Formats: sequence, C-alpha cells, structure tokens
Amino acid sequence: MTSGRATTAKRPAGDNPARMRDRNRAAPVDLAELPDRTGYVIPRARVWIFQDVIRAMAEHDIRPAQFSVMTVIGANPGVSQSAVSRALGIEHARLAVMLHLLEARGTMKRVNSRHDRRSNALHLTPAGKRLLGMLKAAVARHEERVIAKIGVDGKRELLRILSVFLQD
Amino acid sequence: MTSGRATTAKRPAGDNPARMRDRNRAAPVDLAELPDRTGYVIPRARVWIFQDVIRAMAEHDIRPAQFSVMTVIGANPGVSQSAVSRALGIEHARLAVMLHLLEARGTMKRVNSRHDRRSNALHLTPAGKRLLGMLKAAVARHEERVIAKIGVDGKRELLRILSVFLQD
Repeated sequence: MTSGRATTAKRPAGDNPARMRDRNRAAPVDLAELPDRTGYVIPRARVWIFQDVIRAMAEHDIRPAQFSVMTVIGANPGVSQSAVSRALGIEHARLAVMLHLLEARGTMKRVNSRHDRRSNALHLTPAGKRLLGMLKAAVARHEERVIAKIGVDGKRELLRILSVFLQD
Repeated sequence: MTSGRATTAKRPAGDNPARMRDRNRAAPVDLAELPDRTGYVIPRARVWIFQDVIRAMAEHDIRPAQFSVMTVIGANPGVSQSAVSRALGIEHARLAVMLHLLEARGTMKRVNSRHDRRSNALHLTPAGKRLLGMLKAAVARHEERVIAKIGVDGKRELLRILSVFLQD
C-alpha cells in the first residue's frame, strides 16, 4: 500500500533492515477531502517553496520578505515606506523593523523627501544593489527548481490563476 | 495611474474627499519580477486564503491545522500520532501540543493500541465528530469564496499543478 513497497519487495525476506523500517510505518493515511481544499494545498505548497527560497538566500542572510522589500526599493528609487507597505501587504510596524535591519547592514538608506517632510525616500546603497543582484540570481535558480517540479506551462498557469490574489 | 482613478475622475474637481485621499496615495509601485516569482505569488495567495479560512473557523475556535488533524483522525479511526505527523507534515512536538488541546476540549481521545504498546490510537469523540461536520461545512463555504475569485476551472487546474507538493 505504500509507494516504497515495490522496491523492498525485490529484496530477500527476513531481517532486512529496510523491510523492517517499512513494516514499522503505518499504512498510508486517508487525507479525505484535504487534497481538494485550496486551504490545505496552497499552504502545503508554500512550505516547500518557502523552504527552498530560504535556502537559496541563506548564504546572504536574507529572508524572502526582505528580498521583496529590496526588490521594490530597487525598482522604485525614492519610494516611501507606506507605498512599500501597501504594495507588498506588509504591516507598517513589521516593515519598520525590516528597514532598520537593512539600513544597519548598509544595504538601504533613507533620504529626506522634498515633497513630503513626514516621510523618507528609500534608496538602495551601491552595496545593496550588488546584494540584490546576487539575490535575484539565487531566486532565478530557485524558480528553475520549481519549474522542474511543475513544468513551464504549470508555472505559467499557476501565476495566471493566482494573480487575482495580488490585487487585494 | 491607479486603478481607482477612473471612478474619481467622474466626480467634480476641488475639495472632493475621495480625490484628496487618492492624491495622498503615492503612484503605484513597480513590483519588478515579483509577480513572476512563485516564491512571491504563492505566499501572497496563501495570506488571502488563510485569512478567509481562519475567519470561517473562528466561531468554533479552531485553527486550520487543527482542522486538518481532526479530518485525518476522522477518516482514519485509530491512526497513530506519527502517521498523522507524516501525512500532514506537522512536526511531532507541535502535533503533540495540538492533540493535547483537542483532547482537553473533548473532541479527541487516545486509546491504547493493541498492536503497538508504544503508541496510542487516536479517535474522535462523538462531540468531535459533530464539530468536524460543522467545520467541513464552513470550509466548503470558504471554498465557494475561493471559486468566486479563481473560477471552478481555475481551482481544478491549481490543485492539479500543486498536487506534486503534497507528495513530499
């Protein structure tokens, strides 16, 4: 009943360690309606994808949300904190902590805005731009691993279907 | 430049509050490659879906992962804790806490297993079965809201593409 049986069945019977391990496993469990529920399937997929993207960025000590923030600042020099918060759906308090960390690392700087004295304009430093370039390359390699699992067409369809959730 | 402009443009100019609010908003920011990255799109979709499913279960004071655990126990009476852990990808320690809570609420009970004295067999109580029935109805209504956003075909395609992530 388990997917591993086909392999172990070829081995001689008796005190085969692999077979013993296999026997200790319970029969596969019935997931009932769960595989038909987006509320189950999307979080499961997200765990795989997040773990892979976290690994991809780990050598640079950057988390996925920090990467998103750097990408938005890089593509919109002088953007305000509240615009980043809205665009990425990151709460203001959490974003403030992230910006503080990025600034302390020398990847981002705040410049007083001419147009609105209440808010700062955010810019990447030269070091931040170099780091973002390396992170984007790491993320592109991660996406290749996703494509290896779901295919180019699968990825295109997936992004098309889910694009509606980016507009909230 | 914002999607809201078409509406406000129809209103008379001047001290229109909606127009003032609109002007206070910065121009929409460029998300660069992010909408083409599964590592960005899937977590964004998950936030919407999770918030909706959490709301759906809130009146029963149940979290999505607890619902998954109850579903698996309901569909596999006598299942072991380690089998639930493997099937749902929930760490053993975290599952132990969840089972403790479900047991304290009177929705789940542990029975000494005849086959393996080291592990308990998990069962829903009659109250747990009734609660699971109500939760399943709430989740079905949540799925209708997801379908309203992505369509029946979109949901079918989505689950097909992501099914590969359930096999890890």
